Amino acid sequence: MAKQSQRGRRSSAAGPEPSAAPESRAAAAEPGFEDPAIQGLDALLKPRSVAIIGASPRPDSIGRVILHNIIEGDFNGVVYPVHPKAAFVHSMKTYPSVLAIPDEVDLAYVVVPGAHVLPVVDECGRKGVRSICVISAGFREIGGEGIRREEELLDLVRRHGMRMVGPNCLGLISMIPGVRLNGTFAPARPRSGGLAFLSQSGALGVSILQHMERLDIGFSYFVSIGNSADIRGRDLLAYWEDDPHTEVIALYVESFGDPRVVGPVLRRITRRKPVVIVKSGRTAAGMRAASSHTGAMSAADETVDAFLRQTGAIRAYTIEEMLGLLTGFCRAPVPRGKRVAVLTNSGGPGIMATDALVTGGMEMAQFSEKTSRILDDMLPPEASRNNPIDLTAWGVADTYRQILPILFEDPNIDIILALFVPPMMVNPADAARAIAESRRGRDKPIFGVIMAEESSYRMLPREVPDCPPIFPFPEMAVKACIEMYNYHERQQRPRGRCHRFEVRRADAQAILDAVRARGGGFLPTADCMRVLDCYGFPTAPMRETNGIDEALAAAEALGYPVAFKVAGRMFVHKSDQGLVILNLKNELELQGAYSQVKRRIEKLGFSADEEAGFVQKMVKPGREVILGVSVDPKMGPVILFGMGGKYVEVLKDVTVRIPPLTDVDTLDMFASIRGYPLLQGVRGEPGVALDLLQECLLRLSQMVIELEGLVELDINPFVLNPARDDCAAVDARIRVEGAQA
Amino acid sequence: MAKQSQRGRRSSAAGPEPSAAPESRAAAAEPGFEDPAIQGLDALLKPRSVAIIGASPRPDSIGRVILHNIIEGDFNGVVYPVHPKAAFVHSMKTYPSVLAIPDEVDLAYVVVPGAHVLPVVDECGRKGVRSICVISAGFREIGGEGIRREEELLDLVRRHGMRMVGPNCLGLISMIPGVRLNGTFAPARPRSGGLAFLSQSGALGVSILQHMERLDIGFSYFVSIGNSADIRGRDLLAYWEDDPHTEVIALYVESFGDPRVVGPVLRRITRRKPVVIVKSGRTAAGMRAASSHTGAMSAADETVDAFLRQTGAIRAYTIEEMLGLLTGFCRAPVPRGKRVAVLTNSGGPGIMATDALVTGGMEMAQFSEKTSRILDDMLPPEASRNNPIDLTAWGVADTYRQILPILFEDPNIDIILALFVPPMMVNPADAARAIAESRRGRDKPIFGVIMAEESSYRMLPREVPDCPPIFPFPEMAVKACIEMYNYHERQQRPRGRCHRFEVRRADAQAILDAVRARGGGFLPTADCMRVLDCYGFPTAPMRETNGIDEALAAAEALGYPVAFKVAGRMFVHKSDQGLVILNLKNELELQGAYSQVKRRIEKLGFSADEEAGFVQKMVKPGREVILGVSVDPKMGPVILFGMGGKYVEVLKDVTVRIPPLTDVDTLDMFASIRGYPLLQGVRGEPGVALDLLQECLLRLSQMVIELEGLVELDINPFVLNPARDDCAAVDARIRVEGAQA
Repeated sequence: MAKQSQRGRRSSAAGPEPSAAPESRAAAAEPGFEDPAIQGLDALLKPRSVAIIGASPRPDSIGRVILHNIIEGDFNGVVYPVHPKAAFVHSMKTYPSVLAIPDEVDLAYVVVPGAHVLPVVDECGRKGVRSICVISAGFREIGGEGIRREEELLDLVRRHGMRMVGPNCLGLISMIPGVRLNGTFAPARPRSGGLAFLSQSGALGVSILQHMERLDIGFSYFVSIGNSADIRGRDLLAYWEDDPHTEVIALYVESFGDPRVVGPVLRRITRRKPVVIVKSGRTAAGMRAASSHTGAMSAADETVDAFLRQTGAIRAYTIEEMLGLLTGFCRAPVPRGKRVAVLTNSGGPGIMATDALVTGGMEMAQFSEKTSRILDDMLPPEASRNNPIDLTAWGVADTYRQILPILFEDPNIDIILALFVPPMMVNPADAARAIAESRRGRDKPIFGVIMAEESSYRMLPREVPDCPPIFPFPEMAVKACIEMYNYHERQQRPRGRCHRFEVRRADAQAILDAVRARGGGFLPTADCMRVLDCYGFPTAPMRETNGIDEALAAAEALGYPVAFKVAGRMFVHKSDQGLVILNLKNELELQGAYSQVKRRIEKLGFSADEEAGFVQKMVKPGREVILGVSVDPKMGPVILFGMGGKYVEVLKDVTVRIPPLTDVDTLDMFASIRGYPLLQGVRGEPGVALDLLQECLLRLSQMVIELEGLVELDINPFVLNPARDDCAAVDARIRVEGAQA
Repeated sequence: MAKQSQRGRRSSAAGPEPSAAPESRAAAAEPGFEDPAIQGLDALLKPRSVAIIGASPRPDSIGRVILHNIIEGDFNGVVYPVHPKAAFVHSMKTYPSVLAIPDEVDLAYVVVPGAHVLPVVDECGRKGVRSICVISAGFREIGGEGIRREEELLDLVRRHGMRMVGPNCLGLISMIPGVRLNGTFAPARPRSGGLAFLSQSGALGVSILQHMERLDIGFSYFVSIGNSADIRGRDLLAYWEDDPHTEVIALYVESFGDPRVVGPVLRRITRRKPVVIVKSGRTAAGMRAASSHTGAMSAADETVDAFLRQTGAIRAYTIEEMLGLLTGFCRAPVPRGKRVAVLTNSGGPGIMATDALVTGGMEMAQFSEKTSRILDDMLPPEASRNNPIDLTAWGVADTYRQILPILFEDPNIDIILALFVPPMMVNPADAARAIAESRRGRDKPIFGVIMAEESSYRMLPREVPDCPPIFPFPEMAVKACIEMYNYHERQQRPRGRCHRFEVRRADAQAILDAVRARGGGFLPTADCMRVLDCYGFPTAPMRETNGIDEALAAAEALGYPVAFKVAGRMFVHKSDQGLVILNLKNELELQGAYSQVKRRIEKLGFSADEEAGFVQKMVKPGREVILGVSVDPKMGPVILFGMGGKYVEVLKDVTVRIPPLTDVDTLDMFASIRGYPLLQGVRGEPGVALDLLQECLLRLSQMVIELEGLVELDINPFVLNPARDDCAAVDARIRVEGAQA
């Protein structure tokens, strides 16, 4: 229970907490209460008694297969088959309904036709079953009637205080010691280990289970969440965060929940355990396919990338890549540095590994003097004693046994990559074993590559203690090594903090609300600038004017040179319509500009009452950037930053992140655009006030979270100069949704 | 012999032929003569008698292993073991020297210690052996003495009119019908097929042979070229070009020969057969590794990329990727369109495949009305009848048998991708067989993905005629499908033509030679502009001047506004040194600029005789681009094109190609830079004179090929405007090497 109370209480709808790091749990924790998200998951993931409702005598029926898998897996508890007619199934006494079971039931698998699910689940509730896993399909995924049926199912589950996995799923597995529940209908025998896996696709889950069996990687848990009506990814993540059996987490998902809910959990958890995610549905066509598959509309892929990057999760783009990364994370300690020693018996793969390592940001280790001396003594003349060490034909199992300990001892080496290509008569199993046995008792990671049939090294993880990961190709090993080092490196970085600035929130909201009350739309430019001002953005000084006399007086007060712009909110593309005239140096030019704009407005079909405009003091020319906000239909608000200016815009040099932004996020945004050197200063030119730019991004993040109804914002251009005082937002666009929306 | 004479004669040092397409063979062909590059290769690749010199009785000796492989492979000819003492080896009569063999020998494998190679090869020459394959190491790869030994070896081979593979290699295999020579010491039994493979690494070659055996892909030839002292990649490519047994070509190389020699062969051959290349040594560290491995200095990777792109070869970045591409090319017909139908029994992999297809430029097919109607009738409600077709649990072997023929018949589908994830009790072998058998007798490509143990589909290529490629993951299948379509698409493109412009070559060479005679270095700016003028580039009008009076007179003649620049060739970075003053609108400003420049020259420590400068008419402002030439130590001259301008330069928006450029190459260069839309015109602005830009790139290509001693050239900026007459080179730098170099 000590463990439980530590977990503390977190609201399941916990929003961002801008004044603290988003991954901090302290802010939301109240000792003594359990996070509702993980409430009841113990019964589900550590059951002592399980019922299979719908276990039929037919050997190939799904219920029977689950029952068989559970028995064959030697579940450490009691399993009760339930079937309306059968007296026994799989030689086991069978009950006509869950109500007839004489003992308590922690978890019931529901494997009856869709139309019969509701009454069966109701019986579970009445029986006091604590959790259910609904395998049956026929819910949200078939649309129409299925959607209503899923709503009723969820109601029923909530009413009875149960938790539910599914419906429409493959099942769930808990391989932790003392449980050993192989509760899916997949033809796979999962081993026990440290990997917790969540799959949004059942069929892909089958494939994953089989690959993991082949790779001999063990699970703590495997959950196919199906339609995730009740239990969602966020709940399982929260449970796995503190779970002592889970060391590595992997997810296959086709859509995320609300990033404001999932984000904070992910940010926290990735600080402690690596989380590898495959998110499919990356392209529009892929999304349509995902959409017909899970009924969930997917987010733009770059937004998903940004989100995962911010949370510290590791994104794999293919199942194969994920398998490689998990092999690494589950079999090797995380590297503490990036200096790699490559040992090979073949030049070609050594070169290819070196290429891949250096491209991925790793360093080739400079051996210590001691290592170099020993290698010099040991190696024959034809071998290369540099890094990569190329043993050529001299490299047999014994050579690897001699040299690997030297590399393990060298303090200048953080990671060892040992490649072996079997030459002529050599059985690769010997060299594979030499590599596998080398790590025993050491905590430096070694990655093996045996370029031969998998059968030559497949059994090693079962036979050799501390067996390192072994791959069939150098690039896979290198990919795992790079992502594992990056994971280590991210953990060393400061956590990042959000900032809460003193702002005039109410004033800004009032400006928005005025337009929202009229049904929403674009704000007049002057109002946009006022909203920015409320949030502490530097803006170019301006005055609203009506008629030429006011314009001239305003210019006089602000000081020339000035710009003259129309104010009306129907003119959204003012510049393209010729309704913005810049750099007016004196009264004469301002008068000319005024007349010109007036004529253009009339040509566009508007009349005299549109003489309202404003005069703005020209900002000192500098580097132009864009700051913006849009709303992704699935991921919610997205903050954009990029280079501005007419031409550079064409190069689309922008990057996006999900709010709330931390200071670390903003620095990462800077580094993500190609034009960053222009802001830092090139060819002896001074850099711009990056501290102000960072502050403005953080202010924007706060604004997006605090203001209601904001659906689009563009600050373009935001002009930057070396001095903070010479920086200002020059123009802005804000769109709000109607108050009723 | 008709075949032979067709091949025609090509000089092995054939340079580029700028007036014709570089891949045209007509220009170099003289009927009746054989290309010296392929001379003698028949004896090597189609031998009727083979000697193994160094076949020792020790079962694990390399010579004995080669002998064993050849016998076990059932070589369709006679093999003679040669050993100084043994009376028999492997139960075969053995000869004390090659001279003792009573019959003719087409090919001798030399497997004796390095120091004994020369006398043995000399004996081969005296015996009249037509070709040799030197397995023995101890040559160039060990440096020093080895380099000299290799030179003597080559001398000997040439003197005796033999051809040689190696030294330091794995051997060579010829699996064409009527030969069946498995002549390597790799533990592999290659099958006969249409793949010709060249490997620069012996050990990697072993791995390749084993993978191909696993994938059941057959070879026409496999050659490990080792140090390639005599026979090089270009020779084998030339041979395979016309070889009727070779349908697909693959290369693993660590360095290329001269691209001006290899390029034309590759350009020709890729028009007829796909060529897949892995080039390792991509990074500086990888190159050092390659360098210690093969003693060959490697080229910058982007240059290699450009070169392969121009030749039409397909670059694979890893061995695994290459294996996937070869599985596709060897097992499926090349797609004739890019409309893909995806059939799956599992949503997740269907989505991932769709993502990968669309990202790679393919299209999701819109089914014909007929197909849609049949699918509607056939599919149960839970299946998705869009593309991807998701059969869900309904998808078993029989379903695939029913639906695949419909997709084969649909004229709106060019490619079929059939995915299968084995659900619970289903044996994937049935579905794999259903997919494998579907293509029989059809020429539309189908790519299968079976997400299960390889063993479930591994035997199918041997059992099923026309068996399509089957992959374990969707992304591999998609990658193969995309590269195969791109190959098709490239073959449809016009071949591209080089152009030969009327230029004043001799004048330009004379300008260069004047500096070369002084030991080389940078040309004075005015000379650079003259060289450009000789080659027909538009240049901004200018006059050299000495003293202020001449400068004023020149400006008067050219017309204001003008720029004033110093002329001396010691001022290479004129702009950064403040020795270029632009946009002088009148006499007064020119005088001011003149004085300023003069003061700066004195400050830099130069004196009055450096008053030489020039006055240049200002060009109408426009888009600035860079054209350039540099020399890669390995790949030779490289042409660079990119966006210019101080800031955009920071974004490094440039692309490179190897001369000679064709018109198709230049269009590809345009499309390769991000700023291309700026040149085409954005936001209603007119585009620049792209035809002139294209012409200038072609002129640059001609210049690079024709002028001797040119080692560096920069035209920066080259100013572009919509009208051709408003475009001009404004400044240029040229460096030449000394005449003695």
